[in-house]
Amino acid sequence: MKIALAQLNYHVGNFESNTAKIIEAIKKAKGMGAELVVFAELCVCGYPPRDFLEFAEFIEHCDDSAKQIAAACQDVACIIGLPTVNPGKEGKDLHNSALFIENGEVKAKVIKALLPTYDVFDEYRYFEPGTSFKCIEFKGHKIALTVCEDLWNIKDNPLYVSSPMDILINENPELMINIAASPFSYQHDEERIKVLGDNCRDYKLPMLYVNMVGSQTEIIFDGGSLAFSETGELLDEMEYFKEDLRVYEFSEGKLQGLTPKQHDPQNDIEQIHGALVLGIRDYFQKSGFSKAVLGLSGGIDSALVCALACEALGPENVTGVLMPSKFSTGHSVDDALKLVENLGCKHHIVAIKEAADAFDGMLKPIFKDMPFSVAEENIQARCRAIVVMALSNKFGYILLNTSNKSECAVGYGTLYGDMAGAIAVLGDVYKTQVFSLCHYLNRNGEVIPENTISKPPSAELRPDQKDSDSLPDYDTLDKILYQHIEMRKSSREIISQGFDEALVKKVLKMLNVAEFKRYQTPPILRVSPKAFGMGRRMPIVGKYLT
Amino acid sequence: MKIALAQLNYHVGNFESNTAKIIEAIKKAKGMGAELVVFAELCVCGYPPRDFLEFAEFIEHCDDSAKQIAAACQDVACIIGLPTVNPGKEGKDLHNSALFIENGEVKAKVIKALLPTYDVFDEYRYFEPGTSFKCIEFKGHKIALTVCEDLWNIKDNPLYVSSPMDILINENPELMINIAASPFSYQHDEERIKVLGDNCRDYKLPMLYVNMVGSQTEIIFDGGSLAFSETGELLDEMEYFKEDLRVYEFSEGKLQGLTPKQHDPQNDIEQIHGALVLGIRDYFQKSGFSKAVLGLSGGIDSALVCALACEALGPENVTGVLMPSKFSTGHSVDDALKLVENLGCKHHIVAIKEAADAFDGMLKPIFKDMPFSVAEENIQARCRAIVVMALSNKFGYILLNTSNKSECAVGYGTLYGDMAGAIAVLGDVYKTQVFSLCHYLNRNGEVIPENTISKPPSAELRPDQKDSDSLPDYDTLDKILYQHIEMRKSSREIISQGFDEALVKKVLKMLNVAEFKRYQTPPILRVSPKAFGMGRRMPIVGKYLT
Repeated sequence: MKIALAQLNYHVGNFESNTAKIIEAIKKAKGMGAELVVFAELCVCGYPPRDFLEFAEFIEHCDDSAKQIAAACQDVACIIGLPTVNPGKEGKDLHNSALFIENGEVKAKVIKALLPTYDVFDEYRYFEPGTSFKCIEFKGHKIALTVCEDLWNIKDNPLYVSSPMDILINENPELMINIAASPFSYQHDEERIKVLGDNCRDYKLPMLYVNMVGSQTEIIFDGGSLAFSETGELLDEMEYFKEDLRVYEFSEGKLQGLTPKQHDPQNDIEQIHGALVLGIRDYFQKSGFSKAVLGLSGGIDSALVCALACEALGPENVTGVLMPSKFSTGHSVDDALKLVENLGCKHHIVAIKEAADAFDGMLKPIFKDMPFSVAEENIQARCRAIVVMALSNKFGYILLNTSNKSECAVGYGTLYGDMAGAIAVLGDVYKTQVFSLCHYLNRNGEVIPENTISKPPSAELRPDQKDSDSLPDYDTLDKILYQHIEMRKSSREIISQGFDEALVKKVLKMLNVAEFKRYQTPPILRVSPKAFGMGRRMPIVGKYLT
Repeated sequence: MKIALAQLNYHVGNFESNTAKIIEAIKKAKGMGAELVVFAELCVCGYPPRDFLEFAEFIEHCDDSAKQIAAACQDVACIIGLPTVNPGKEGKDLHNSALFIENGEVKAKVIKALLPTYDVFDEYRYFEPGTSFKCIEFKGHKIALTVCEDLWNIKDNPLYVSSPMDILINENPELMINIAASPFSYQHDEERIKVLGDNCRDYKLPMLYVNMVGSQTEIIFDGGSLAFSETGELLDEMEYFKEDLRVYEFSEGKLQGLTPKQHDPQNDIEQIHGALVLGIRDYFQKSGFSKAVLGLSGGIDSALVCALACEALGPENVTGVLMPSKFSTGHSVDDALKLVENLGCKHHIVAIKEAADAFDGMLKPIFKDMPFSVAEENIQARCRAIVVMALSNKFGYILLNTSNKSECAVGYGTLYGDMAGAIAVLGDVYKTQVFSLCHYLNRNGEVIPENTISKPPSAELRPDQKDSDSLPDYDTLDKILYQHIEMRKSSREIISQGFDEALVKKVLKMLNVAEFKRYQTPPILRVSPKAFGMGRRMPIVGKYLT
C-alpha cells in the first residue's frame, strides 16, 4: 500500500486556494502511485481559524470544500482535516475532525480528543473533544488515525486524563497516522521526534506524521513531516519551511525501503532564520502586499530586519528610510548606507529635525522651561513613525517593526514610534540572538556592516545615549528574561541561580509594567516556545511583580 | 442562620489589598450578626488573573492569602474563591476552587466543573474541571455550593455534557450558594436573573448568589448579587457598580423576611454609562494614575469621553487638548471650548499646522507632485497623537482613546493617530449609542454642547469631509455590524433581513480588512456581549469575507 504525505502551505479562510492545492496534490500523488494521500489538521480552512469558527457560514464553506475534495478523490483515498458540526445536543457546536475519504465517499470521521488550550492554542474554545475511538480500515489494513495533540499526552506530566491510542491499540492496528498543525519554535523539531518516536515504541507500531508548513500572521509552521519504524526509529524527514510531497510503501506491518536515519537538527539560529524569512514572505503574500518599508537607524535590529526582508521579498521590494535627528551620530547614516549598498535595496534619507523642532515649538507654551525628558525623546521616535507610515500610506508599503524581544520585554521602545509596524519581525528574538543572527548572515561575507554589529547599542534619542545607561548588559538581561518568560521561574528561583537580587526584581518589574505597551505591539513572528502576543496573556492593570 | 454576601472590588494580583478587604468584610459582617460570609469567585487573586496563573509563586501567594483569611475567620465561617493546585497526576495543574472555611480551618473544597472557554473567558487554559461533587455542611444545614458557570448549563443548548447540580441535588441540600465572577454587558443582568431563577425552579431550592464588582482593564464586573426563593422568585438584588454587603436570614428551608420583588432594569444606555464611569475610574486607580488627557475635536466622541472622564476622575484631573488643523472648521474649536466650560476641566490649544507642514515639506522630495491622499490625512491625525502623548509623557497623564465601535469596526481611524491611547472608552459603543449617551448626559441640562450633537460627524482631515462621504449612515451601519458581530450572522442572513446586498458585503469586507488595525487598538472597555479585543479573536491575514 502506497501512502503519500502532502505537506502544504494553507491560507486561513482561503477555501478556494486551499481546496485547489489539496486536489492538485491528490492528483500528483496518484500519479506517483499513491493509494492514500494524507493532509494536515484543519487543512481545509487553515490553522488557526480562530473565531471565524463561530460563523455557521464558515463551517458551510468547510463542508463544501470537503465535498469538492471527495468528488476529486476517485480511485484513491485521502485524509483531510476540517471542523465539523457536533451532531450531539450537548457540548460545543464543533469537532476538530479528520475525514477518511475513499472513492468520493466519506468512510470515517475521527474526532480529536485532546484539545490544546494553552500558549497560542484555544481549541476548547471551539471544539467538543471526541470520546469514542475506532480505527479506520483501508485495503484490509487497520490504521490508528489521530489528530496532532492526541499523541502528546506526555507520560511524566500528562495534561489530559485519557489517551486515544490506549483505546485504539486494542483493535490491533498495523500503522499509526497522525495529522498535525504543529507550529515552529526553535528545538521543537527535536521534541516532536522524541514524542512521536516514544509513541511508536510504546505501541510497537510504525507511524506516518504530516504537518503543515507556512505562516499565518504570527504563527509559523515548519513542516518537517515524519516517518517512523515500529521500534520508534526515525526513517524519513520531509523538508523544513517548504512544501513537500512524498510517497511511502507500507506492507507487512512495516514502512518498506527505508533505513533508520539520524535527525540532524539545524542550530537555533539557522532555524530562526528560516522561520523569519518564511514568516515575512507569507505575511506579505497572504495579505496581498509585496513591498516593505522600514526605518534604518544604522543599528543592528533594523539592519537585520532589512536583510531578512530583502531575502524574503527581494531587495527591489524593500525601502529603507534613514531619519537622522540632531542626536544621530555620523556613523549612523554611514552604517545604514553601507547596509543598503550591501543589500541592494532602495532607500530615502529624511531628516526629522524640522518636524521635531516644530513640536518643541508648539509645546513650548505648555512645557515652558521644563527639562528635556522622555517626552522629547519620544517625539523624535514618533516623528520617524509618521514618516515611514506616510510612505506606507502613499505607496502601499507594509511597515516592518524592528523591536527585539529584550526591548519589548522591558518597555524600551516608544509606543506609536519605533513600536509601530504591521508585523514585528524580531519581537520574539532576544538581543543576544539578534547578534547571532547577524553573524550568521555574515557567514559568507559582510551583509550587516561590521560597525553596526560592533558599536554599542543606542537609541540616539539624547546626546551620547547608550542602551547600557538604562538597561543591564544584554547577556544578563536576556538570561533573566528567559528564565522568567520561557521557563516561568519566579524572582526567588532566578535569584537562587546566582543573579543579583535587586537586578532581578528591577527587570521583572520593568517587564510587568510594560504590559500596556505590548498590548498595542504588532503581531510578533513566533520563534520561541513563549512569545509575546496571543500565547502570553497578561493582565494590564494587574499588581503582580510591579 | 445568618449568611452575608460580600460584593467587593478586587484588584488582580494585589494580594495585600484583596486579603485586607476580605478580612475587613468578615469582621464587618460578623458585627452584623453573620455566621457565614460569602465572597466571589477567585476573589483572592482577582479575576481574570490570566497567565499570572502559570507562575507557581502566584499560586503560593493565593495559598498564603487563604491562610491569612482562615486565621481571621474565628467564630465565623466564610467561602472564598481562589486557584488551588490539582493534587492529581493527570490534567491541568490547577483547579478553580471555592474554599469553605470555619473557625480557621478549611472544611471543604469545591472545584468548578464547567469552565467557560469562550468570548473573554479562558478557564480551560488553566484549570482542570471538578468531577466529583458533595454538599458542604454548616450548622446542620446542607448547602449546594457551586462556582459561577456551574449553574449555566442552559437547557436548550447545553454547552457542557454534565451539570454539578444534577449530582448535588441527590443529597437533598436546603440552599444553593453560587460564587461568581460574571462580567457586565448591557442586559446581562436580566439573563442572569432568568438563569439563576430557573435553577431555583428546577431544583426547588432558594439561592444566594454573590458576584464581584469593579473593572480589570477592559472587563467590568457590575455586582448585582442576588437572593432567590425556592420558587425562583427574586427576593433581593444588591447594588450595581458599587461594593455592597448584606446579611440574609436562612431557616426552615427559606430565606426569611423577604418578599418577592421585580427586577427593574436600567435601560441599556444608563447601564453602559455606569459601566464606563466605573471602567475609567478603576483603570486609573488600579494602575496608580489620577490624571487623564485627551484630544478634543469638537466632535461627539471626544466630547462624550471627556464628560465621562470628568465624572470618573473629577474635572480637575482631566485635560482636553484642542488641536485644530487647516481643515478644522471654526465651530470645532468653539464647540470644544463650550464643552470644557460646561465640564470645568482644563484645556490647551495646540494648532498642528506647523508640524503637519514640516512633514509635508520633508516628504516633498519623495512624494513630489502626487495628489493629497490618505497619507496626508493621517499625518494630521498622527501629529495630534504626538502632541497628546507628549503631554502624557511629560506630566504622567493617561491618554484616553475616543474611537467608537462603529469606527473601530470599519477601520475608520488612523493607527498611531486617533487610535492611540491607554484605554479605549467607547471602543465597544456604537456611534448610534454614542448619540444616546450624550442625550442621557444632557438629561438635566447641557453638558455636551448641542451643536456637537447636531452637526454631521466629520474627521476634518480634508476640506469639507463628512463621515457620510465614505461610510453608510450610522443607523444602517450599526445595524449591519450588530447582526454580524454580536449575532454572528452571515452576509446571506443579513441580506435576507432586507439590507442592501452590495452594502452588506462592503461593510463586512471593511470589517475584516481592518483586523490588523484593531490588533493594535488599546484595550476596550467591554459593555456588549461581543467587544473587540480578547473576546473576539480573528485571524489577521485570513482571507474570509475580504
